[in-house]
Amino acid sequence: MMKNDLFLRALKGESVDRPPVWMMRQAGRYLPDFMKLKAKYDFFTRCRTPELATEITVMPIHQIGTDAAILFSDILVVPQAMDLPFEMKADIGPWLQKPISSAADVNKIRVPNVEEKLDYVMEAIKMTKSELDNEVPLIGFAGSPWTIMCYSVEGHGSKTFNKAKGFCFSQPEAAHQLLQKITDTTIMYLKAKVRSGVDAVQIFDSWGGVLSPADYQVFSWPYIQQIIDALKEEAPVIVFGKGCWFALEEMATSGASALGVDWTITPENARAFSNRNITLQGNFDPSRLLSPIPEIERGVKDMIDRFGKDKYIANLGHGILPNIPVENAQAFVNAVKNYKS
Amino acid sequence: MMKNDLFLRALKGESVDRPPVWMMRQAGRYLPDFMKLKAKYDFFTRCRTPELATEITVMPIHQIGTDAAILFSDILVVPQAMDLPFEMKADIGPWLQKPISSAADVNKIRVPNVEEKLDYVMEAIKMTKSELDNEVPLIGFAGSPWTIMCYSVEGHGSKTFNKAKGFCFSQPEAAHQLLQKITDTTIMYLKAKVRSGVDAVQIFDSWGGVLSPADYQVFSWPYIQQIIDALKEEAPVIVFGKGCWFALEEMATSGASALGVDWTITPENARAFSNRNITLQGNFDPSRLLSPIPEIERGVKDMIDRFGKDKYIANLGHGILPNIPVENAQAFVNAVKNYKS
Repeated sequence: MMKNDLFLRALKGESVDRPPVWMMRQAGRYLPDFMKLKAKYDFFTRCRTPELATEITVMPIHQIGTDAAILFSDILVVPQAMDLPFEMKADIGPWLQKPISSAADVNKIRVPNVEEKLDYVMEAIKMTKSELDNEVPLIGFAGSPWTIMCYSVEGHGSKTFNKAKGFCFSQPEAAHQLLQKITDTTIMYLKAKVRSGVDAVQIFDSWGGVLSPADYQVFSWPYIQQIIDALKEEAPVIVFGKGCWFALEEMATSGASALGVDWTITPENARAFSNRNITLQGNFDPSRLLSPIPEIERGVKDMIDRFGKDKYIANLGHGILPNIPVENAQAFVNAVKNYKS
Repeated sequence: MMKNDLFLRALKGESVDRPPVWMMRQAGRYLPDFMKLKAKYDFFTRCRTPELATEITVMPIHQIGTDAAILFSDILVVPQAMDLPFEMKADIGPWLQKPISSAADVNKIRVPNVEEKLDYVMEAIKMTKSELDNEVPLIGFAGSPWTIMCYSVEGHGSKTFNKAKGFCFSQPEAAHQLLQKITDTTIMYLKAKVRSGVDAVQIFDSWGGVLSPADYQVFSWPYIQQIIDALKEEAPVIVFGKGCWFALEEMATSGASALGVDWTITPENARAFSNRNITLQGNFDPSRLLSPIPEIERGVKDMIDRFGKDKYIANLGHGILPNIPVENAQAFVNAVKNYKS
């Protein structure tokens, strides 16, 4: 039995005394103890070493007291398993030497045996679950097929992912083949994660917001829907589409248990666009954690008042920034825990 | 008298046979003749030499046949005039060696005599107006104060402008002082542009979309409203807020003559959010110009059908990309010109 099951209850839409709280990227860069590990081990070593991934994952549970843990990992482990050898370059970020640029490149991609290729993730889940000892639930995650494709075609981060979009618009057949291969891999990956012990999964569509609403329904949403269909009986699914406010209505009837929203939409609009019938998660502006603590506290209270305490998971609208003082992150979490309507 | 006054009539909301069309960044990188000049002269030399700015500005009028010209220039000439010496670095883009980081830095900033400091812009306007010979109207532009501040505090481009946001949230007084100084400069700059001959002005809030709706009303919108109030009697004002769909309602009652929208909002939502009472401009996804030409033609027809031919200016949802084939840009413009409802 889960000792703190607030997060799982919010995903079911049950009434709660106060909303659960966690922070995207909570296992990371703002924590001094994380920085010590970062100085010793490179990024993918941290992902690939179950002991390290476990230590990093449980860090914010013990140090900040969030109501859910999220496995320390990266969305790019999926394309890595598909033989796209992404590296993490200092000052650049994700880097793929030979990005996908043709139908022939897509043809070469194989859907891998994920339990074999990504056994280190499954190992980390089992170790983390044991370490957490049912204190709080554990979230597993994956990038959306569109977002993974963005990196695989662009080869690195981008403001606009115009190269990836150009690939879709000029070679739509190859693009859909690639998206389907990523989808098939992701479904197997997330199912393996659930079997290994995660209590919920979150799909990050970090770059869905660079598409028009019409193109989103062609190149991103149908693949996310496939993942939801395949997973929803096995674990609650959260979909976070950054900048995807325009798709909330469709998302709300997808079978997902919750939708993440970023800070560019008001709570009122987020509720209205999703027809008020689904748990929402978000949406504190990560930069707003640089405000003085009393302002953070007022902002959190205002946010919960406006979303409502039920069918709601307090979170940031995107990942926590590296330069946030720990006491400000702590103030954010405490403000949710102290919420009185 | 303007020979082709479609653009000005659309700004007044008059009924037209077909919408006018122009493209953000139309005077630029996709045109082979522009690339020849680019190989010979660096970016700010092109901005600062009236003969070059004129030649580049009229290029798309003669070669592509758009219904309005927009002066070749850059939003960063305004902070340059405020003694923030922005350079344009290859592969990096805008670059400011010593970004603003403190109240003391803000204190040092003076509102300049823009007609003196930016006389080369006024010279280019007069030369361009003479060259255009009233064929089509000429648009002048400026960045929004928020967007200029983003670059001035960050020192370069960014996906998120978290440093600029952090400055606002941790030192709001200094931030507002800086925003006001940029606003005062921008008002004088745009008034001088109108006196020099531009027929309309556009304010680019390229980074308004990184703010929450509440923070937008604190750090961006009030300063744009000041500019509209100061300019609207002298020339039609277009406001383009990238990612600012959440502010369309407020923008629609601001006194602006038109609002630009990007491709992440449907025409139906853009009309609904702006209460159907203002001219809208946009919003073809620039990457969609990489589609085969018949698809571009279908997309343009669909876009105009959905916005409606009146109170509408056909445009892209952001600047044209450097890798667009000229014939695809031409197909976009032709499709608007051939529009039949």
